[in-house]
Amino acid sequence: MSRISTFDSTLADRLPIQAHTLFEAKAKKHLTFEQIAKELGRNEVAVAAIFYGQAQTTPEDVEALARVLGMENSEKSKLEAQLAGYPFRGQTMDMPPKEPLIYRLYEIVQNYGYAYKAVLNEKFGDGIMSAISFSTKVEKETDQDGNNWAVITMRGKWLPFSRF
Amino acid sequence: MSRISTFDSTLADRLPIQAHTLFEAKAKKHLTFEQIAKELGRNEVAVAAIFYGQAQTTPEDVEALARVLGMENSEKSKLEAQLAGYPFRGQTMDMPPKEPLIYRLYEIVQNYGYAYKAVLNEKFGDGIMSAISFSTKVEKETDQDGNNWAVITMRGKWLPFSRF
Amino acid sequence: MSRISTFDSTLADRLPIQAHTLFEAKAKKHLTFEQIAKELGRNEVAVAAIFYGQAQTTPEDVEALARVLGMENSEKSKLEAQLAGYPFRGQTMDMPPKEPLIYRLYEIVQNYGYAYKAVLNEKFGDGIMSAISFSTKVEKETDQDGNNWAVITMRGKWLPFSRF
Amino acid sequence: MSRISTFDSTLADRLPIQAHTLFEAKAKKHLTFEQIAKELGRNEVAVAAIFYGQAQTTPEDVEALARVLGMENSEKSKLEAQLAGYPFRGQTMDMPPKEPLIYRLYEIVQNYGYAYKAVLNEKFGDGIMSAISFSTKVEKETDQDGNNWAVITMRGKWLPFSRF
Amino acid sequence: MSRISTFDSTLADRLPIQAHTLFEAKAKKHLTFEQIAKELGRNEVAVAAIFYGQAQTTPEDVEALARVLGMENSEKSKLEAQLAGYPFRGQTMDMPPKEPLIYRLYEIVQNYGYAYKAVLNEKFGDGIMSAISFSTKVEKETDQDGNNWAVITMRGKWLPFSRF
Amino acid sequence: MSRISTFDSTLADRLPIQAHTLFEAKAKKHLTFEQIAKELGRNEVAVAAIFYGQAQTTPEDVEALARVLGMENSEKSKLEAQLAGYPFRGQTMDMPPKEPLIYRLYEIVQNYGYAYKAVLNEKFGDGIMSAISFSTKVEKETDQDGNNWAVITMRGKWLPFSRF
Amino acid sequence: MSRISTFDSTLADRLPIQAHTLFEAKAKKHLTFEQIAKELGRNEVAVAAIFYGQAQTTPEDVEALARVLGMENSEKSKLEAQLAGYPFRGQTMDMPPKEPLIYRLYEIVQNYGYAYKAVLNEKFGDGIMSAISFSTKVEKETDQDGNNWAVITMRGKWLPFSRF
Amino acid sequence: MSRISTFDSTLADRLPIQAHTLFEAKAKKHLTFEQIAKELGRNEVAVAAIFYGQAQTTPEDVEALARVLGMENSEKSKLEAQLAGYPFRGQTMDMPPKEPLIYRLYEIVQNYGYAYKAVLNEKFGDGIMSAISFSTKVEKETDQDGNNWAVITMRGKWLPFSRF
Amino acid sequence: MSRISTFDSTLADRLPIQAHTLFEAKAKKHLTFEQIAKELGRNEVAVAAIFYGQAQTTPEDVEALARVLGMENSEKSKLEAQLAGYPFRGQTMDMPPKEPLIYRLYEIVQNYGYAYKAVLNEKFGDGIMSAISFSTKVEKETDQDGNNWAVITMRGKWLPFSRF
Amino acid sequence: MSRISTFDSTLADRLPIQAHTLFEAKAKKHLTFEQIAKELGRNEVAVAAIFYGQAQTTPEDVEALARVLGMENSEKSKLEAQLAGYPFRGQTMDMPPKEPLIYRLYEIVQNYGYAYKAVLNEKFGDGIMSAISFSTKVEKETDQDGNNWAVITMRGKWLPFSRF
Repeated sequence: MSRISTFDSTLADRLPIQAHTLFEAKAKKHLTFEQIAKELGRNEVAVAAIFYGQAQTTPEDVEALARVLGMENSEKSKLEAQLAGYPFRGQTMDMPPKEPLIYRLYEIVQNYGYAYKAVLNEKFGDGIMSAISFSTKVEKETDQDGNNWAVITMRGKWLPFSRF
Repeated sequence: MSRISTFDSTLADRLPIQAHTLFEAKAKKHLTFEQIAKELGRNEVAVAAIFYGQAQTTPEDVEALARVLGMENSEKSKLEAQLAGYPFRGQTMDMPPKEPLIYRLYEIVQNYGYAYKAVLNEKFGDGIMSAISFSTKVEKETDQDGNNWAVITMRGKWLPFSRF
Repeated sequence: MSRISTFDSTLADRLPIQAHTLFEAKAKKHLTFEQIAKELGRNEVAVAAIFYGQAQTTPEDVEALARVLGMENSEKSKLEAQLAGYPFRGQTMDMPPKEPLIYRLYEIVQNYGYAYKAVLNEKFGDGIMSAISFSTKVEKETDQDGNNWAVITMRGKWLPFSRF
Repeated sequence: MSRISTFDSTLADRLPIQAHTLFEAKAKKHLTFEQIAKELGRNEVAVAAIFYGQAQTTPEDVEALARVLGMENSEKSKLEAQLAGYPFRGQTMDMPPKEPLIYRLYEIVQNYGYAYKAVLNEKFGDGIMSAISFSTKVEKETDQDGNNWAVITMRGKWLPFSRF
Repeated sequence: MSRISTFDSTLADRLPIQAHTLFEAKAKKHLTFEQIAKELGRNEVAVAAIFYGQAQTTPEDVEALARVLGMENSEKSKLEAQLAGYPFRGQTMDMPPKEPLIYRLYEIVQNYGYAYKAVLNEKFGDGIMSAISFSTKVEKETDQDGNNWAVITMRGKWLPFSRF
Repeated sequence: MSRISTFDSTLADRLPIQAHTLFEAKAKKHLTFEQIAKELGRNEVAVAAIFYGQAQTTPEDVEALARVLGMENSEKSKLEAQLAGYPFRGQTMDMPPKEPLIYRLYEIVQNYGYAYKAVLNEKFGDGIMSAISFSTKVEKETDQDGNNWAVITMRGKWLPFSRF
Repeated sequence: MSRISTFDSTLADRLPIQAHTLFEAKAKKHLTFEQIAKELGRNEVAVAAIFYGQAQTTPEDVEALARVLGMENSEKSKLEAQLAGYPFRGQTMDMPPKEPLIYRLYEIVQNYGYAYKAVLNEKFGDGIMSAISFSTKVEKETDQDGNNWAVITMRGKWLPFSRF
Repeated sequence: MSRISTFDSTLADRLPIQAHTLFEAKAKKHLTFEQIAKELGRNEVAVAAIFYGQAQTTPEDVEALARVLGMENSEKSKLEAQLAGYPFRGQTMDMPPKEPLIYRLYEIVQNYGYAYKAVLNEKFGDGIMSAISFSTKVEKETDQDGNNWAVITMRGKWLPFSRF
Repeated sequence: MSRISTFDSTLADRLPIQAHTLFEAKAKKHLTFEQIAKELGRNEVAVAAIFYGQAQTTPEDVEALARVLGMENSEKSKLEAQLAGYPFRGQTMDMPPKEPLIYRLYEIVQNYGYAYKAVLNEKFGDGIMSAISFSTKVEKETDQDGNNWAVITMRGKWLPFSRF
Repeated sequence: MSRISTFDSTLADRLPIQAHTLFEAKAKKHLTFEQIAKELGRNEVAVAAIFYGQAQTTPEDVEALARVLGMENSEKSKLEAQLAGYPFRGQTMDMPPKEPLIYRLYEIVQNYGYAYKAVLNEKFGDGIMSAISFSTKVEKETDQDGNNWAVITMRGKWLPFSRF
């Protein structure tokens, strides 16, 4: 049986309460985020973000989560209460990230940040790529030599600076 | 005449010496990174990274740079000498980035870092997406309402942790 | 003759090159930002932000700046070159700000940040107030006891988080 | 039923004890800060600030809070004891803020801080805008294209530096 | 001839430009801050603060400074230009202070800060002691055993938090 | 009944154990630090410092504390045990202080630190004002316009640097 | 009986849950990492890394761990559950390390980092030594004078930067 | 002609003065550290460390450096003067290192630091591996698939903690 | 009865588990470190270091500790288990130290660090004074005026840098 | 000719101006601090501290310095001017120190700080060892095996906390 992402005890204090509920159910049913995401009709990164308290859910999302995770009514009610407010994003992560996988993403920003800015400015003018009107996905490619490549796509609305 | 990315004087102390040479020539010829990149046969983000000292050049790259930037022989020699060593990456950027455009990329890592890890681990196992065996590009999309969207694609080799 | 805001030598290293040019001319003509702003048809905070390298100018802005600041052609050309690129925002300020006036604004975010979030979420849903599609102004009020009050208004587009 | 702001478990350790009591009652009655604020005759930002331990209450405020939140006598007594001292402000927030909504406010200070100072000095002389003799409010505007805009107004007494 | 406070070269980069002018003249005339302060009719701490760029001068102050420091007209004009803007306070000091004398003041805040708050709140209610509507002085006492004692007095207006 | 300073729950983890005991008793008896200080024959700031673990007590102090706080024998014994060791000062405070009142004191050191040093050196020579052989007090003044002013006096022994 | 490495209580909060289980069993059986490593057919550093949550286990590793540590079935099941996810590396260590032994390793990077880079670049070109496709070992040497020497070997795959 | 390690202009301010002299000569002669090291009879990492101001030279080392770098007498005298004092180590590197190659070494300490300590303690007892009585080397291995591997060996004297 | 050093509750989380056991027993028996040290035949600083988890014990030390502290067998067994591993040093102290007494030691390093280095290099050559092969002691002197002086002696083996 | 401590170029910006003058003369005369100290009748650590701007000089000290360093009158006058003010201590050192020799002293404070406090408190009561009424010296011992030991002695006046 393949390994799945689970709740990490070293993060316990910094994760929102729903993370405990959701990861416990995920581990019991042994589901991947891809499997859960299909049920919600959302991207698997968005679903993982829900688990980590970084994205909001609709009532339909909660229904789907409870269904795919095999939650009983009492558990579902608990989950609904835990997801009733607005997300507090970004609290979990210490920066710079110490986790090697996440550090690589941070390093990309550190090394290529000015290059991205230079190119984006020339393509779009003075402004930013939104991280709010934003979506992202992760894909797997295998080249002819059998090497795997991870492909991360980030798509954000371009917001020009207002003139005032 | 459209605006291009230029040398920013507030970064002067932290940029390698070739940045001065290259940005000055770029401004004089009023070229975009896209125009320069075509001459080198490389991606425009990679070319901007060369300007910021974050990527290495081949002798052919230097030839092409000198050609497209209209450098005279003496300038080209200076550039060759400035690009003779190995890049020292990452020195330019203060973290967290204060520049709003670059901060948005940092914020994506901060908010979605654990979600990326969870999904990448489930797709690839225990390992990291390399930021070295790595390429990236920036694209522009316009939706039917006329809104522009920036699309950043990052592609890195998957490196599993060695067992020892 | 009333006092005006001038170039501060302790910031010299962190200010973009146009700050030197603009503040020098401003001091010579002894103009307030309000006077300069009228000529540009922009808000005085935006104009001060141009001086500090935090906002972009159109060619018409540069024309107006040169006119109101009494710049000769050579000075105007120099200014045009200095303003030719895209702004690198945020580099000037050390955080937390040590300047008492600016610290008070920082303290407002520190003390009322969660309250703003709670109220904004209830009024608008899950999202952020943009600091890009954004304008701001400063006004002076005097109450019946002769006390002066500073009123800062910030107006930003509401951006809901995308569902993906 | 629309969503309301609730107690965020990731902040639990850093919030004062009354935050637990107040947010729990708010969630049970499903009230917005606007609804609660009406009962107290105070601004909704001030009321949210009370919940987060950033503002003081009068005995009448506590009465009104207990009434609108439907607290029984024992709960009200507990609340009175929890609110008996003087607020310790500012302890809750990590700076720079990681929460995207609050970061945008921080970014405004970072980008426009010097511009605000320059304009305020020219309008008022040498001094500061008080963050103590201070009030603030949040308003919602919708433009003709149906876009929502958040408007934050800050009003602080001008305090000139004493001569000594 | 007794020793006086002079310009410290290790601070050169962080001191405003007038500090160079003023300290040089002070050294040449070998005057104490007490002597200079008498001429201005201000407290010697305020005068030292002017030298360090932490306080504003009136035209009369500049006249008096030039007079007591024996400045020629050209020097006085230079000084006037250097003092024409609004002070940028707080930039000079690294915190925590490494200088032992200043560290002791910092330590007093660190050790007694909560005690001051507790006592001030009980004496005045919810608010702060202003550091803006503020004056301070330094006095010397000698006890019967011949020991010297430094006495620092700080006097700030009490600002109650606004209710809103 | 007027408000008194109480135990702040957001500091709970960083306060020494006696703080819990003492503040609880103080709240029950509803006493100000001034009232308690009279019983001990000490300054109210010193007494508040005892509550926050920043000052040492004699056996007579503990007697007086127990008496004025109306402690029973078992409580008094507990207090004696809690106060039996030597104080660990300075652990409570995060620097820079986020609490607005305490920040103002910190800001005074930040802005006037060098001025104090310059003046103290000229008055006393090379040395420091001790923060150990040190006392302090807080007073309230009301001017003719009815404004309140807080006056903090710090008195420390002057320690010249040893020659060796 | 010789001393072995045990669970350190000052790290308790920052270690993953399996660390508690594994170190407790190790202490009960009084085994060294070398003894445990033999049973797993892995290097002792890798095994210690498993204990600290820095390396992944196969099902066979867990079998071997349970066997050599003398775990009963219920303990083994608990361990399997604790090791079911993907490691979150790097969370345990505060940097710079305060522990003297670990600081020495950090100091080597601090002092020789640029020298390693210069030599590695000349030997391999532009790239990095992977810390992922990586193994390490610790050996003991005794010289003729009876002095002990620790020898750490690090072996990482060379990854050249991609050209794009 | 293969590329060699050269002086990096972004480090100019933080490198000791001999770094300028030595790297300039190295670039002119186009020598690798391996070639220079042979002439000195020292390891190439030690020689690179000399260039970066992290290791001491004997008079014979300086002779050999001058010889292999083809320095004239005046240059050699300059070098001798620059190398006359004792090294100030560690000043060059910002920690955490931003350079990707050096960060990987830092990450190894971060991830495996406790594992190294646990294993070293079990092998040697309570003590540290010296970074002073210490040598290191870098080797290149190529496996059967043509992949290159970097091998770093660190050898330090074991120092037991003194009993006192 | 004179006061002794006891367990400080503000450090509870950062002290190793044996600190709780040892300080509790010390308080019950009301012993000074000097009294305990005599029983162990070690220096009192070393014994205090054992209490704080900064030094290792032999089985004989544990015997002597148990004896002098009047521990019963069960307590002694608990202590033996708590002291079974290798010390993790340095975790307790936040740097810069906030405790005034300890800050003074830190300040000595800050002010005299370069002077110590300059003098030690001239006396011993290129190397360091070991903090591992190291002992220290504290003595009390009283001068003829009745003033007390603390004398701290540090003695460390000189380690020359290896040539490689 | 034995090596002496010289001016380190990586510290140039942070050293006071007299450091340049003094170290240059010291290098020219090739004198150790011990030799210079004899001429001043002061301890060599104090003399090195003068060179680094950490200690004050009397006119006699300056005379002696000029004499032993063989300064001409013009150089001596320059030195007198550079030493005319009061020292600004502590600015030179970055903490934590990166220099290995100085880090060892820092590590001693980090590891033994609480032990020193515990023992000093028991020997002297509640107070501190002054770093101002303070002297220090460095001695060399050679044991029977020919190993060198550095002995640092610190002697500071004991200052009891005032009761107020």
